[in-house]
Amino acid sequence: MSHPLLIGIDGGGTTCRGAALYGDTRVTRAVPGANATSDFEGAVAAVRAVVQALAEALDLPVERLAQAPAYLGMAGVVDDRVAERLRSALPFARVVIEEDRRASVVDALGARDGAVAVIGTGSFLARQSGGDMRFLGGHGLALGDEASGAWLGREALAATLRASEGWGAGSDLTRGLWDEMGGRSGIIAFAARARSRDLAELAPGVVAAAEGGDVQAVDLITRGAGYIAGALTALGWQSGEALCLTGGLGPVYAGVLPTAMRAALSQPQGAAPDGALALARRVAEGALP
Amino acid sequence: MSHPLLIGIDGGGTTCRGAALYGDTRVTRAVPGANATSDFEGAVAAVRAVVQALAEALDLPVERLAQAPAYLGMAGVVDDRVAERLRSALPFARVVIEEDRRASVVDALGARDGAVAVIGTGSFLARQSGGDMRFLGGHGLALGDEASGAWLGREALAATLRASEGWGAGSDLTRGLWDEMGGRSGIIAFAARARSRDLAELAPGVVAAAEGGDVQAVDLITRGAGYIAGALTALGWQSGEALCLTGGLGPVYAGVLPTAMRAALSQPQGAAPDGALALARRVAEGALP
Repeated sequence: MSHPLLIGIDGGGTTCRGAALYGDTRVTRAVPGANATSDFEGAVAAVRAVVQALAEALDLPVERLAQAPAYLGMAGVVDDRVAERLRSALPFARVVIEEDRRASVVDALGARDGAVAVIGTGSFLARQSGGDMRFLGGHGLALGDEASGAWLGREALAATLRASEGWGAGSDLTRGLWDEMGGRSGIIAFAARARSRDLAELAPGVVAAAEGGDVQAVDLITRGAGYIAGALTALGWQSGEALCLTGGLGPVYAGVLPTAMRAALSQPQGAAPDGALALARRVAEGALP
Repeated sequence: MSHPLLIGIDGGGTTCRGAALYGDTRVTRAVPGANATSDFEGAVAAVRAVVQALAEALDLPVERLAQAPAYLGMAGVVDDRVAERLRSALPFARVVIEEDRRASVVDALGARDGAVAVIGTGSFLARQSGGDMRFLGGHGLALGDEASGAWLGREALAATLRASEGWGAGSDLTRGLWDEMGGRSGIIAFAARARSRDLAELAPGVVAAAEGGDVQAVDLITRGAGYIAGALTALGWQSGEALCLTGGLGPVYAGVLPTAMRAALSQPQGAAPDGALALARRVAEGALP
């Protein structure tokens, strides 16, 4: 008799994390990731690499893993077409492939009702209630990603230009950015070619400045918190429901949320790829999709 | 004795307009333009082409035009380095080269005191007072360009996604964009690769919807007007000073500005390249830079 086997993969744009559960043995591996929309072949290669690493960790043939129920939460699976293309390019016999947002929520909440604000380079929010999951955001910096690292970086540069034109107060943060970036022309040139990850590299400086009381940095963190609070309300979050702030920047907003939200703050239950593995169990039980 | 000769060129990113004044004879020509930062060689070629066309119109050798006092307002001259590089690549003996913002203001105001909001694909504002000129905006869509065509298009798509998530009301405008763009994934994919000019192509639809009373479109126009009003105040605009709304979209905001600003609205005095030619006269007089 063979042991039951489950495969869960959280394929982020930067890191692709995989877990396998084989009887009582749980192994995890991580490899460089890729976004399935912007780098489809890279995303396929990442999944293949992490499955290979998991097979080696369990000392099983990779073909055995490909027969196991699997759940893949993959950055860049924006629609069914991308999901189907990935399914065709991968060897799994029984797999559910979705965007990575659901796995992130299960990482944080498990099966609990509540809400999650996932704030990293980008941002999205979700609410889980009675087995139903609703999402808000995750549209990319051009159309949203409010409160995210990229957003903090971009808004800090916009505030810097504004202060230089006499609209709004300057601060140590904006004066520092002005000098560092080479003034107006340097900031405009940087922003015109910067990707989200480039802008997000400015976020730690904004966070540190806010901790030091810098007026412009505090304003940005407050605006980000206002977005999170508004989005949670739009999702139907109710006072008393659990609220997790995750991603590299989620915890930054803990202190500036409205009182009822601060009171509801809860530690995330796990981290990637816990959620993907939990969802693989639901695939095995036929409960997904 | 030779006639006095002046050359004024307004080198926009889309169209490069030139004027020559030769005694009492004024000729203008237009050729395809280019932004001096994103397409330096294209910008040089555009200036050479328009000077050639002006020389033919006046039946003068192009070398004669190159000896005349000249003013070039060029899109993409974000700093002295770009201006100097252009100067080296062009044959003018006596020329001032700047960003195209000053020429746009002189187009609209001539020597009058007052303010201008230049709202096209992008946006900037300026105030002229006692011979001094101050600018605000013109930073590109990533960091600003509020109220512009690109901004209207981008904000309409953001409102569409927001309405689809139950945050804010939908309208005929947002439902139309949702269908036309292919829903969430189509909108995200479009916005991720869209340049300002692509987003600005959505602006006429927003303007038309606002004229029909569409609640989301009216909200966007109102927000754009709020930006213009705030920016004018930041520039120190005073009640009673002339105010021109120019560019393809400036007039859209006329009806929704605060009362004092509506009362100050004034027709632009001219259009490109009038301002560049007026500034060429100041070059001839030694009054620029």
